[in-house]
Amino acid sequence: MALKVTALAGGTGGAKLVDGLTGLLGSDRLTLVVNTGDDFEHLGLSISPDLDTVTYTLAGLANPQSGWGRTDETWNFLQTLKEFGSPVWFRLGDRDLALHVERTRRMKAGQPLSEVTRTFCRIFGIDHVILPMTDDPVQTIVETDDGDLPFQEYFVKHSHEPEVRGFRFEGIEHAEPAPGFLPAIEDSDAVILCPSNPWVSIDPILSIRGVREALEGKVTVSVSPIIGGQAVRGPAAKMFAAMGIDPSACAVADHYKQILTGILIDEVDADLAPEIEALGIRARVANTMMKTQPDRKRLAEEVLTFTEELLEVESLQ
Amino acid sequence: MALKVTALAGGTGGAKLVDGLTGLLGSDRLTLVVNTGDDFEHLGLSISPDLDTVTYTLAGLANPQSGWGRTDETWNFLQTLKEFGSPVWFRLGDRDLALHVERTRRMKAGQPLSEVTRTFCRIFGIDHVILPMTDDPVQTIVETDDGDLPFQEYFVKHSHEPEVRGFRFEGIEHAEPAPGFLPAIEDSDAVILCPSNPWVSIDPILSIRGVREALEGKVTVSVSPIIGGQAVRGPAAKMFAAMGIDPSACAVADHYKQILTGILIDEVDADLAPEIEALGIRARVANTMMKTQPDRKRLAEEVLTFTEELLEVESLQ
Repeated sequence: MALKVTALAGGTGGAKLVDGLTGLLGSDRLTLVVNTGDDFEHLGLSISPDLDTVTYTLAGLANPQSGWGRTDETWNFLQTLKEFGSPVWFRLGDRDLALHVERTRRMKAGQPLSEVTRTFCRIFGIDHVILPMTDDPVQTIVETDDGDLPFQEYFVKHSHEPEVRGFRFEGIEHAEPAPGFLPAIEDSDAVILCPSNPWVSIDPILSIRGVREALEGKVTVSVSPIIGGQAVRGPAAKMFAAMGIDPSACAVADHYKQILTGILIDEVDADLAPEIEALGIRARVANTMMKTQPDRKRLAEEVLTFTEELLEVESLQ
Repeated sequence: MALKVTALAGGTGGAKLVDGLTGLLGSDRLTLVVNTGDDFEHLGLSISPDLDTVTYTLAGLANPQSGWGRTDETWNFLQTLKEFGSPVWFRLGDRDLALHVERTRRMKAGQPLSEVTRTFCRIFGIDHVILPMTDDPVQTIVETDDGDLPFQEYFVKHSHEPEVRGFRFEGIEHAEPAPGFLPAIEDSDAVILCPSNPWVSIDPILSIRGVREALEGKVTVSVSPIIGGQAVRGPAAKMFAAMGIDPSACAVADHYKQILTGILIDEVDADLAPEIEALGIRARVANTMMKTQPDRKRLAEEVLTFTEELLEVESLQ
């Protein structure tokens, strides 16, 4: 296709669509920007869960069962650490660990995260540019009935069980967009919001200074991560409910309404299309589940075709 | 036995004798003090090679083939790190890595090395007290024709091949003896210098402030790490030669002559006994090779019997 696109993504669902998109758009036509609000330091290591999921996915190394970590993984490090009584709630495989040790080593030597990520992409043979949303530290805090929890503690350590009250992105006001992020948007025909959690995966990216401004007048297309009122994976639906919003594809459209041109919703949610279009957002119905590798490419094709149509409509106006 | 002993040790050879000694003397009668001049930071991890060898040995976890690292080890971390082009000359196994990550975590949280070591001993079920020589950073530098090299770089990275010109222990003048080190010597009937490298394993321990003074008037017994003019393992013989000294059990005795009461030398070196005794140091001939587990206990018995005899002689004088 001849489109130029920037895709914003979080972890699992986002990584799957990104994988589909890279099969259709070359590296000169697709830039990937990934949430780093989940990044944290654990056992002295700098860990970037969403970046790693996207990177491992594009490298063909992602564990297809878990949605995180690597294939062919072993767990001898973690098993031994457990014998020491150390915190093992965040599961670090022996091979995965090499990535975190190497990233930590490079960052301590002064390399920004975007440069480290570029190096990893080169090593993994990934042609597409993967950018962290920022090189600066941003920490997504989930405000819950059990207190304020850094995202990974909420998500993994506490199995996203505490009742959510709100979110904040600590450090966001001082975070510069990663080099190339805003120019990529400016240079793109459209921006795709991958089917990632709107509250904690996409919102941090959109909250980086200058991003919403750069999106003004751009065709912006989302794929709803809520299907039939439920998240395919993770706490997105629960978060909508906690914020007093009925979780639905319509709620997703409404969440993004200030920037959204169109949204791809699942066939099971076809009856929500009129309600979404009433918000001034175009809705397109498709099979949005990505269970197999071909599903990823199929959905990516749906998104890009829909995006092209929206661009055509825009150009006629 | 009724002796109270402090044993000073480096890595492999020292660890083997220490293993034998712990089978003969309870934790109330034997304190172990280990060289930390080889300690270094690698990939952001605090690594204590000699402490780990002694600890793994007493825990029954040491790799009997290599002389370092653990049994039942896997290498997936290192293999992956190699794919990243990271430095892999220092071999870190997946299980071994847990120890380094945990030590680094605890030290960054402010725990001194001696406290971390105590925790590891508790976890490994080791009753005897293992003390690092100091909680302060000391770095053994090997001065070579290729420049000054931190010990592990000389020993592992450069396979102890560069020509040695001298040694220095950076930070030694500010290093306090670890809590309990000097009291252990004071409380001991005798001090045993294990068959470790005199230049880079035992000398750093002896160079800690107050140690030589504490040894004055103490019965101090060494086991020669040089047998038939050669080191059982490692560069000790080469180092003697580089310093212009013919490597031999006699050279070891001479090296320690200011503090040594007696030395155990191997049967192959029996003819050196008169020369050693001429230095005012008692020499005892024994089979000092430790190839098997029973060898360790047998040699420990030889050392302790010899030590008791030396104490008896002293008491008669």
